[in-house]
Amino acid sequence: MTPFKLTDELLAEIEQLIKDQKGSSLVTLMEDVHYADVAEIINELNEEEATYLIKLLDSDKTSDVLTELDEDVRESILKNLSAKEIAGELEELDTDDAADIVGELPNEIVQRVISEIEDREHAKDIVDLLRYDEYSAGGLMAKELVKVRENWDVLKCVKEMRAQAENVTRVHSIYVVDEEDKLKGRLSLKDLLTTSTRTHIRDVYIPKVDSVNVNEKPEEVAKIMSKYDLEAIPVVDEIGRLVGRITIDDIVDVIREEADRDYQMAAGISQDVEADDSIWDLTRARLPWLFLGLVGGVGAAVIMGGFEEMISKHAILFFFTPLIAAMAGNVGVQSSAIIVQGLANDDLKGSIGNRLIKEMLLATLNGLILAIILLLFTWIYKGNFPTAMAISISLVVVIVVAGIIGTFTPLFLHKRGIDPAIATGPFITTSNDIFGILIYFSIAKIILGI
Amino acid sequence: MTPFKLTDELLAEIEQLIKDQKGSSLVTLMEDVHYADVAEIINELNEEEATYLIKLLDSDKTSDVLTELDEDVRESILKNLSAKEIAGELEELDTDDAADIVGELPNEIVQRVISEIEDREHAKDIVDLLRYDEYSAGGLMAKELVKVRENWDVLKCVKEMRAQAENVTRVHSIYVVDEEDKLKGRLSLKDLLTTSTRTHIRDVYIPKVDSVNVNEKPEEVAKIMSKYDLEAIPVVDEIGRLVGRITIDDIVDVIREEADRDYQMAAGISQDVEADDSIWDLTRARLPWLFLGLVGGVGAAVIMGGFEEMISKHAILFFFTPLIAAMAGNVGVQSSAIIVQGLANDDLKGSIGNRLIKEMLLATLNGLILAIILLLFTWIYKGNFPTAMAISISLVVVIVVAGIIGTFTPLFLHKRGIDPAIATGPFITTSNDIFGILIYFSIAKIILGI
Repeated sequence: MTPFKLTDELLAEIEQLIKDQKGSSLVTLMEDVHYADVAEIINELNEEEATYLIKLLDSDKTSDVLTELDEDVRESILKNLSAKEIAGELEELDTDDAADIVGELPNEIVQRVISEIEDREHAKDIVDLLRYDEYSAGGLMAKELVKVRENWDVLKCVKEMRAQAENVTRVHSIYVVDEEDKLKGRLSLKDLLTTSTRTHIRDVYIPKVDSVNVNEKPEEVAKIMSKYDLEAIPVVDEIGRLVGRITIDDIVDVIREEADRDYQMAAGISQDVEADDSIWDLTRARLPWLFLGLVGGVGAAVIMGGFEEMISKHAILFFFTPLIAAMAGNVGVQSSAIIVQGLANDDLKGSIGNRLIKEMLLATLNGLILAIILLLFTWIYKGNFPTAMAISISLVVVIVVAGIIGTFTPLFLHKRGIDPAIATGPFITTSNDIFGILIYFSIAKIILGI
Repeated sequence: MTPFKLTDELLAEIEQLIKDQKGSSLVTLMEDVHYADVAEIINELNEEEATYLIKLLDSDKTSDVLTELDEDVRESILKNLSAKEIAGELEELDTDDAADIVGELPNEIVQRVISEIEDREHAKDIVDLLRYDEYSAGGLMAKELVKVRENWDVLKCVKEMRAQAENVTRVHSIYVVDEEDKLKGRLSLKDLLTTSTRTHIRDVYIPKVDSVNVNEKPEEVAKIMSKYDLEAIPVVDEIGRLVGRITIDDIVDVIREEADRDYQMAAGISQDVEADDSIWDLTRARLPWLFLGLVGGVGAAVIMGGFEEMISKHAILFFFTPLIAAMAGNVGVQSSAIIVQGLANDDLKGSIGNRLIKEMLLATLNGLILAIILLLFTWIYKGNFPTAMAISISLVVVIVVAGIIGTFTPLFLHKRGIDPAIATGPFITTSNDIFGILIYFSIAKIILGI
C-alpha cells in the first residue's frame, strides 16, 4: 500500500474541478480515496467547496467523512445541509458517531433532523445516547452490538446473530443476556462456528466478561481495555443491563487526546489548540500561563529587592539567580512529571511519606554532584571561596526543596481529586522560581554573615 | 465487574501462603484472577516468591503473566527456570510475545530453549521473528493469522480457516493471497457466514486492503491504524508477500509508550524511568538535563558578569533577570510543544517561513500585553520610567526571539531527520535563558545609554 499523501497539486486539481463543477470527474477521483483522507482534503477547502463536495459524494462515504473532520469545518458544512440531508448522513453512521454529531447541532434543528431519520429504531438509539454525559462510558458507547439469550440454542443464535450483525461493523464478541437484558457472559464467533447447532447457549458461553458501568470515566475505560488487551467492552447500566458497547478504536482516540492534553499542560498551554489555529485562539491558550510566569518573575524581583544591601559586596550572588531559578524549575518539573505519569499509569505503590523520603535522597544526590561542579567553577572563576561555598550549599538546598515540592504537589492534588497534570510545567516552575530565590538569598545571607 | 485492586492485605496473604508452601490454596486463590492482575501481584513479590508462584501455576496462564511483567522482574524469574520450562511457556504464547521474550534471554540459552519447543512450526516462526529489528513493523507483528488462496471456494476456505483459527486468538480479517503468498485482499468472517459455500473466494474478496511493509516504523503503523480505524493490519515483505499481522492491542502499547517518552523528554527525563525505579536509575535519567541547566545557568552568570558596570546605577535590572529567563523559557517551551505535536500528528501544512511569521506575530501580541502590565508595575514599584521602559521593551524582544527559536528548532531537527521532541523542555529552556538574558541586558544598555 502506498499511503495517501495530500499534495498541493492534488488539492489544486480538486479545487479546479469544484470550480468547473465537474461532478462526475470528482466522484471518479474520490472513489478510491479512503474517507479519512477525504476528510483531510475537505479540512483544507473553503466552506463553499467543502459543502459542494459533501453534497456531491454518496452519503455512505460522506457520513464517515463527517465524523473525521475538524469540528469547526463540520459545523460550517452542516449548517448548509437541510435536516433531511443531515438525517441521511446519520442513517449511515453507527449510533455513537451519529449521537456525537447530533450533540453538536443547534438545539432548534435537532428535533427536525431526528424526525427525518427513516429507521426509527436507529433514531431512538441516537436519542438514548444523547442522555449520557459526553465524558463518560455512556457518551463513548455505541448501541450496535450482537446479543443473544442464554436459553436459546446455537441454531437460533446464529440466525438471530446474522440479522443483528447486519448493522454491526465489527462483531468481536456475542454478548449473552438473560430475560431482563442483564449481561451474563459472552461467546466468540469462533466458538459459535465450532459448536453443534443443538447446544444451548447457557451450556457454552463464557460467564466471565469484563464490563464497565455507563458512568465510568473514559480514562478508566481506556486503562481497563489496554490492561486486559480488550478490543471491545460491554457497557452496563446501574442494574447490570447491557446498554451498549465501546470498541478499541474509540479508546485509541481517548488515549491520544489524553496524552496530548497532558503534554500541552506540561508545556503551559491551557486549551486544546493546534499549530493551525488562529493567533487569537493560540493567545488565549498561551497567555494565562505566561501571565502566571510574569507574576512569578515580579515576585522574584521583589524578593531580590529585599536583599539589595548585599549587591555592593556580593554582586556575584545576583549573577547566579537565573541558574538557581532554572535548577529549581527543572528539578520540580522532573519530579512532578514522574509522579504525574505514575499516577496516570496507576503504578504508584506505597505512602506519600516514602515517596518524599526517596525524592529527598535523590535530590540530595543530584544536588551534591551539581554543587561540587558549580563550586569548582565559581571558585576558579571568581576566586572567592566563601561566596562559591554559599552558592553551592544554597543550590543543594534549593534542589532538595524543589524536588519535594514537585513530588508533593501532584500527590496532594490527586488526593483532593484534582487532575495532578496541572501541577507540571509553568505552575511548578513558577512557584519553584520564587521559593528557590528566597531560599538562595536567605542561605547566602546566613553563610556570608551579612 | 468490580475491577481488581491489589491491596496490602491480599499481598500479605499471598506472601504468607507462599511461605507456608500452601500450593493448592494459592492455585484456588489465583484461579479467577486475570493474568494482567497476577503480573501486578508478582511485580511486588521478591524473586524467590515470584519464581515459586510462576512454577506453581499452569503455563497457559503464566505465559501470559510473563509478557505483562516488568522487564527486570521477568528477567530474574526466567533465570530460575530451566530451558524446558521456558520452552513450555513460549509454546503457549503468540509468536510475537514469544519472540519478545526470547529476545531478552541470554544468547547462550536461546538455542537450548528453542530446541525444547515441541511445536516445530511455532519454533520456526519465533526464530523468523527474531530476525526483525525490534523497532519496526516486523518486530511488532505476529505470525498468527488466517489466510486463504484466491482460487479456493468458500467451503474449502471455511474448513481451512477452522484449522488455522485454532492458533489465532482473534481472527479480525481473513487475508487472501495468491500462489506466491502475495497479499491480494481480505474477507471478513461475517461475509464468509453469509455467502454460499460454492462461491469462489476470488469473486467475493475485497481487493483493497491496507498493509504495511516489514520495515515500517512503529509510530507510522500506529498512525495508519488509528487514522483508518483498523483493528489489525497485515504486514508484507519487500516483494509483497504476507509475512505477519499487527493487532491494535500492540499498537495501543506503542501509542502509550510514545506519549510517555515525549512527555518525559519535555520534562527533562532522558530515559524511560518509573517512579519505582532505583535512585541510581532515576539519577541517570535526570542528571544529564540538570547538568545542561547548570551549564546554561553558568553561561547566564558569565553574561551578567559582563554587564557588571550597570549594577551600581541600575540594580533593578538584575532583579528582573529571573523574570526574563522564565518568560523566554516558557514561550520557547510553548511554541516548540505546539510544533512537536503538530509534527507528531502530521497536521502541519505550509512552509517554515509562514510558521515563523505566524509565531512572530503571536509572540509580539503576547509580548506587548505582558510588557504593558510589567511596565505599569515597575513604574509604580520603582518610579523610574526609563528603566521600566527598558525592561518592558526588552521583554517584548525576548519573547519574540524565544518564540522564533522555539518554532524553528523542532522544524529544523525534523527536517534533518532528528526526533524534534528533544527540542522541548530543558533544551529550549536553557538556550532561551542564555539568549534572553543576553538580549535583555544589551537592549537595556542601549536604551539607558550606559
